[in-house]
Amino acid sequence: MRVALDAMGGDFAPVNPVAGAVQALREYSDFSVALVGDESKVRAEIAKHDIRGFEDRIAYVHASQVVDMNDSGLDSVRRKKDSSISRAVDLVKAGQADAVVSAGHTGALVAAATIKLRTLPGIRRAGLAVLVPTPTVGYLLIDAGANIDPSPEDIVGYAVMGTIYTREILGRPNPRVGLMSIGTEESKGNDFTLECFRLLKPAPINFVGNVEGHGLFSKPVDVVVTDGFIGNILLKTVEGLSSSIFAWLKSELKKSPVRMLGAWLSRGAFYAIRGQINTEEYGGTPLLGINGICIKSHGNATPKTIKNAIRVARELVAQKVNARIVEAITQSHEEIAAH
Amino acid sequence: MRVALDAMGGDFAPVNPVAGAVQALREYSDFSVALVGDESKVRAEIAKHDIRGFEDRIAYVHASQVVDMNDSGLDSVRRKKDSSISRAVDLVKAGQADAVVSAGHTGALVAAATIKLRTLPGIRRAGLAVLVPTPTVGYLLIDAGANIDPSPEDIVGYAVMGTIYTREILGRPNPRVGLMSIGTEESKGNDFTLECFRLLKPAPINFVGNVEGHGLFSKPVDVVVTDGFIGNILLKTVEGLSSSIFAWLKSELKKSPVRMLGAWLSRGAFYAIRGQINTEEYGGTPLLGINGICIKSHGNATPKTIKNAIRVARELVAQKVNARIVEAITQSHEEIAAH
Repeated sequence: MRVALDAMGGDFAPVNPVAGAVQALREYSDFSVALVGDESKVRAEIAKHDIRGFEDRIAYVHASQVVDMNDSGLDSVRRKKDSSISRAVDLVKAGQADAVVSAGHTGALVAAATIKLRTLPGIRRAGLAVLVPTPTVGYLLIDAGANIDPSPEDIVGYAVMGTIYTREILGRPNPRVGLMSIGTEESKGNDFTLECFRLLKPAPINFVGNVEGHGLFSKPVDVVVTDGFIGNILLKTVEGLSSSIFAWLKSELKKSPVRMLGAWLSRGAFYAIRGQINTEEYGGTPLLGINGICIKSHGNATPKTIKNAIRVARELVAQKVNARIVEAITQSHEEIAAH
Repeated sequence: MRVALDAMGGDFAPVNPVAGAVQALREYSDFSVALVGDESKVRAEIAKHDIRGFEDRIAYVHASQVVDMNDSGLDSVRRKKDSSISRAVDLVKAGQADAVVSAGHTGALVAAATIKLRTLPGIRRAGLAVLVPTPTVGYLLIDAGANIDPSPEDIVGYAVMGTIYTREILGRPNPRVGLMSIGTEESKGNDFTLECFRLLKPAPINFVGNVEGHGLFSKPVDVVVTDGFIGNILLKTVEGLSSSIFAWLKSELKKSPVRMLGAWLSRGAFYAIRGQINTEEYGGTPLLGINGICIKSHGNATPKTIKNAIRVARELVAQKVNARIVEAITQSHEEIAAH
């Protein structure tokens, strides 16, 4: 198995992607990596690591350009043909890699993957599937921002793909799927979500109806489907609010020596939560629906994040998730049509 | 000044509304209250309080029906003409009250207010304006769920109304207004938000551009405008996540005697945050844009919440907020038209 890694993607590239690749190569023996990016910079980074024993599992693919945050995703595919993201996706297209991993520009990865690899049969729009942590097991949010203007049929696709991913990769037997809305009753929502609800009911998934913001945490489902506009706002709000609350608590805990002592004594509680909401562990967000395996890692990815993103890519390839999605989508189209 | 209070609204009615009214009557001497609801139940509740000194400031207005959570907001106005919400709004319409306060069904209050009192000149859709707490001063989210399908012009109305409210009632000199979107750049968003952006730029407000989920907490603005569908999802998510994090922390802190001791020593930090995010203090959410003062209080309102909702209603009446909104909206229409 071969993973194409965008070595120039993310806020700490090429340092963290290269270090993450080395960690993954050391930990998992079943894959090789193509480091895609400015070859001299990437080799200089590799030189800092001890790669004895697995140097033959590293290939270098030069790419002279980098997509930066000011680029538009779609334009970058046309104008920066030699970007590390585009070249990494090209490797998958040419059959020279089984999966692509990038911590770079989300829009550029979505556009390059959609244009070059196309979507799976029966899927019109890909969706980013993020695992959002909660005190219990967390839920998969799809779409977290790949497409801001999906159709209700695309939402059904997200529900089916989210179900397959949650079952096959996260190991939950019969994933409960909820539709993001403004009330739990079937009648609540806007025209778009009402039509989504109508289509989700006959789909061969465990659809449990609408979920609200409160319900994301108090009555958790396994998969939450929504359009990429709302999904992106939600994801960033959840991330922003979580860090804000902990930063707030930290500043309050530092206000007196007694509070500081108390915080020190109870530090285990904070570590336990930090461990569970740590995005490093999840590593990457699959872009589901693409005819190829694409993993988006967080822009501030650490080496450990990248290592785990590579782990997720390996699992998706090994579990043949795309073949299972195609099978389930075909069945879904048949059941909705028969309804 | 006279406030019409829906004595049957909320999860703990008539107990909490009546107790809150009594607290407000004791604390503020400049208003009287009309308690609207099942008169015998309301009088039985009043009998539990010592109202000597202000009993002549309490009127009882009987209403035989209550809107419950299974009713549709719009239908409730037509079918439950004698509901406590409808009767309370009727008092404002008839000039027998200056403001209405309800902890009951949001949709029913929005529908009754919009149909019976109409919107202000220049405003087509009312918006619920919720103050969301943050470690700094918090921001006003408008619309938090009054209308799920506004036009871009309605969003400009929310921006203008939010500015007036934040300046006049919250006392912030030059409120910064942000548009909820998926990227801070002007080019980021969907067709709807791009059009909102175009209209907000020439409006006579301090428009600072798009805000993202992260930015709500790290680079706070004073007013965040969005449609009622996204606003409602956002508000419930923020509420749900905040309580979920604190509940999670509590359960972790209870796992060992040492952690419990630590939590006890540092309890001041938790109390400080709880004090600031306590919705009781804000009391109620104004429904801005209605030709009349309407305050929606949380369904789980305590007596203190209701007291504070009445305080907010009094301030809105005293500050002549609606006259200022009409003035600002006229100016806004002129500037956008000239642009």
